[in-house]
Amino acid sequence: MTEQSGQGSARSQQDGAAGAPRFGRWSRRGVLGLAGTGVAGAAVGFVAGHASVDEAMPAVVDPATVVHPFHGEHQAGITTPVQEHLYFAAFDVRDTTTREDLVELLKAWTEAAERLTRGLEVTEDGAVDGPVLLPPDDTGEAQDMGAHALTVTFGFGPSLFTGEKGKRLGIADRRPAELKKLPLFAFDLLEDPISDGDLCIQACADDPQVAMHAIRNLSRIGFGTVRVRWTQLGFGKTASTDRTTPTPRNLFGFKDGTANVMADETAALEEQVWVPDDATPAWMAGGSYMVTRKIMMTIESWDRASLAEQQRVIGRDKGEGAPLSGGLEFTDPVFAAKNEDGSLAIDVDSHVRLAHPEMNNGTRMLRRGYNFVEGNNALGQLSAGLFFICFQRDPQQFIDIQNNLRGDLLNEYIRHVGSALFAVPAGTAEGEYVGQRLFG
Amino acid sequence: MTEQSGQGSARSQQDGAAGAPRFGRWSRRGVLGLAGTGVAGAAVGFVAGHASVDEAMPAVVDPATVVHPFHGEHQAGITTPVQEHLYFAAFDVRDTTTREDLVELLKAWTEAAERLTRGLEVTEDGAVDGPVLLPPDDTGEAQDMGAHALTVTFGFGPSLFTGEKGKRLGIADRRPAELKKLPLFAFDLLEDPISDGDLCIQACADDPQVAMHAIRNLSRIGFGTVRVRWTQLGFGKTASTDRTTPTPRNLFGFKDGTANVMADETAALEEQVWVPDDATPAWMAGGSYMVTRKIMMTIESWDRASLAEQQRVIGRDKGEGAPLSGGLEFTDPVFAAKNEDGSLAIDVDSHVRLAHPEMNNGTRMLRRGYNFVEGNNALGQLSAGLFFICFQRDPQQFIDIQNNLRGDLLNEYIRHVGSALFAVPAGTAEGEYVGQRLFG
Repeated sequence: MTEQSGQGSARSQQDGAAGAPRFGRWSRRGVLGLAGTGVAGAAVGFVAGHASVDEAMPAVVDPATVVHPFHGEHQAGITTPVQEHLYFAAFDVRDTTTREDLVELLKAWTEAAERLTRGLEVTEDGAVDGPVLLPPDDTGEAQDMGAHALTVTFGFGPSLFTGEKGKRLGIADRRPAELKKLPLFAFDLLEDPISDGDLCIQACADDPQVAMHAIRNLSRIGFGTVRVRWTQLGFGKTASTDRTTPTPRNLFGFKDGTANVMADETAALEEQVWVPDDATPAWMAGGSYMVTRKIMMTIESWDRASLAEQQRVIGRDKGEGAPLSGGLEFTDPVFAAKNEDGSLAIDVDSHVRLAHPEMNNGTRMLRRGYNFVEGNNALGQLSAGLFFICFQRDPQQFIDIQNNLRGDLLNEYIRHVGSALFAVPAGTAEGEYVGQRLFG
Repeated sequence: MTEQSGQGSARSQQDGAAGAPRFGRWSRRGVLGLAGTGVAGAAVGFVAGHASVDEAMPAVVDPATVVHPFHGEHQAGITTPVQEHLYFAAFDVRDTTTREDLVELLKAWTEAAERLTRGLEVTEDGAVDGPVLLPPDDTGEAQDMGAHALTVTFGFGPSLFTGEKGKRLGIADRRPAELKKLPLFAFDLLEDPISDGDLCIQACADDPQVAMHAIRNLSRIGFGTVRVRWTQLGFGKTASTDRTTPTPRNLFGFKDGTANVMADETAALEEQVWVPDDATPAWMAGGSYMVTRKIMMTIESWDRASLAEQQRVIGRDKGEGAPLSGGLEFTDPVFAAKNEDGSLAIDVDSHVRLAHPEMNNGTRMLRRGYNFVEGNNALGQLSAGLFFICFQRDPQQFIDIQNNLRGDLLNEYIRHVGSALFAVPAGTAEGEYVGQRLFG
């Protein structure tokens, strides 16, 4: 899935200078990346101040030039190796927007997103090559920065299909039965303005300014047709989709996503993540359902809990991330294992147990969550947490697991304040626009 | 100034495993960095998928291992090459805090910050090696992540010295005359809760989670002695202190900081940035005064301005960043230059002209600003802007320039909402604590 523009596809080379290899040019990070992600664990020797380069040394590339193709069987940004930064936006269609307006927008979004993921500006004219007496096509803050592994993923919310809106857009009868507002779960304290939405765009990149630039410019293209409902920034992925890099840690200091569905688990992806080819309605074949949950963490309370309590709540140890039944991070937990005093090694209400596939009829999800920090409240407490994103072939997978977490010890330290469900259609072929199988 | 822990000082090697070189270990970014910053522009050849390694190839290091020494003549985080991420916190001393309490805190902060900047946890016990029945010393989300070029810079606000507080702390007579609340400037729309403060900590790092971890853990150490007054996150530096990497762009899409005081301008640093050795009071010798300004940008208005208008406002072109009088980015602007129609090439009220040293009696400042994005307001507009940070030997430098910007065309598109001034003392010697020359 990963390619570098330096060795890129014919398509990314067609576009001339802006898409061409940038040998000798550097992102402002001034860093080198290992080619792809599969070699990140490869051995490279160093001696004081000088690289000891042996013949097995992997290729190094400027991470700014990493490009994930926009078109494909599935949308990028699901199994794509999780990037470091997120900018997520939910939109509502305006009351005056017609079906034609929305289709035009989806075409324009597709074209712009495809360019952005190649590290180009939204149009040929971009920020500086258009008529000087008009506003520039591109806002320009990512000029020359490169793609930085940007992916742009589109989804449709239930409210797009229902009520007056669904009738006006002519898609009232095309809503999948699974696509409906998520139920209110135990302890949910949802805030309306940061939940739901008619449409969504998930932009992920290894540079925050690139992700921000994508959402800003796509929002700008949507002006007059849709309006921004809510947005979310995130950093420091909290779940990987590949095991070549260490499992990241969430803001509770624990490794997160150890049991995630990985991009190379082909069978699990078919069973758990991708909507099957014989789907109803047919336009969702090859797509997936995306759940987002904004989860505030009461950081100060957590930080005052003992190490033993923290580990009991999670069911894993804080350093290695191994289940409390023993072993290492990727050792399967043994829920029947007991301590010397006869108590269960893994608490029956621990997060790892209640969320585990073994306790959920084998159900799994593909997660791509991010940490967020939004300053401090009036008491000086951190406003921080986890923006949870997961993909599954049926939203019921998330609903069942979330219901099973009703007794989760972790609930004492978290608060769900935002919630949304989106139908993410399959990927596009070249020349096709996102949503064409829905509107076409 | 820059060292890698792999080739590091004797001190950083003394600390055993956690401070030792981490050959073969990788940050979760999984990327390689060029050693230091001075080689970022060096040529490295690539052929499709394989590095073409020639003998001139610079050393590559894991950027996670870049360490800037905490102790030194000046505090780190001023001339240090500007990192990619900022977490800034201002604190107020509690009413019950005694001089002894505050001195103890400054000692504890110094010790913890020195460890953190080496990529260590706040104490030996850290997140997982302490007693399991107590809360861990370290919150643990940056375990094994490395230093990522972290710097931690401390400052003292005017309010620490004045009123009851200054008397209680015994420093009422030690306030520099220059250290007083900044005046209200034309068009200031300051919001009290995000201005001023008794103390501040600026944490900068190339990874956001590392910067966040530093402020979170230092805040935690301060619990009971100080409380958080306001915090600010930032990404994508908007000014460099070195010219080896391209000048970054702000959210208006323009290069920013072209005329910044650079770390290698020794004479300018002495003249403009460092408080001289014969300072009054003596404890500020070798220090600097830091101004912070939270500047909201009305992004949507800007994005609807024509390219010509945007360039007229800034006085530079949007692509290259050259002054409108001609040349390239680093060409000096010629304010008398005229267009063919006889009008001035650079508008008299353009930002570049009014902020230029030539229009300010030669006054300059060292800037380290960051972009910020804080979601969207109820209208769907971006809450975004520039967190401006500058260092100068006398706050009057900032005050004079800011007063000169009264007619700045840019004022139509920005709004200053936060403002603060801090006295940043000189660096510490080993065994010394931050503020020792003030309290000792």
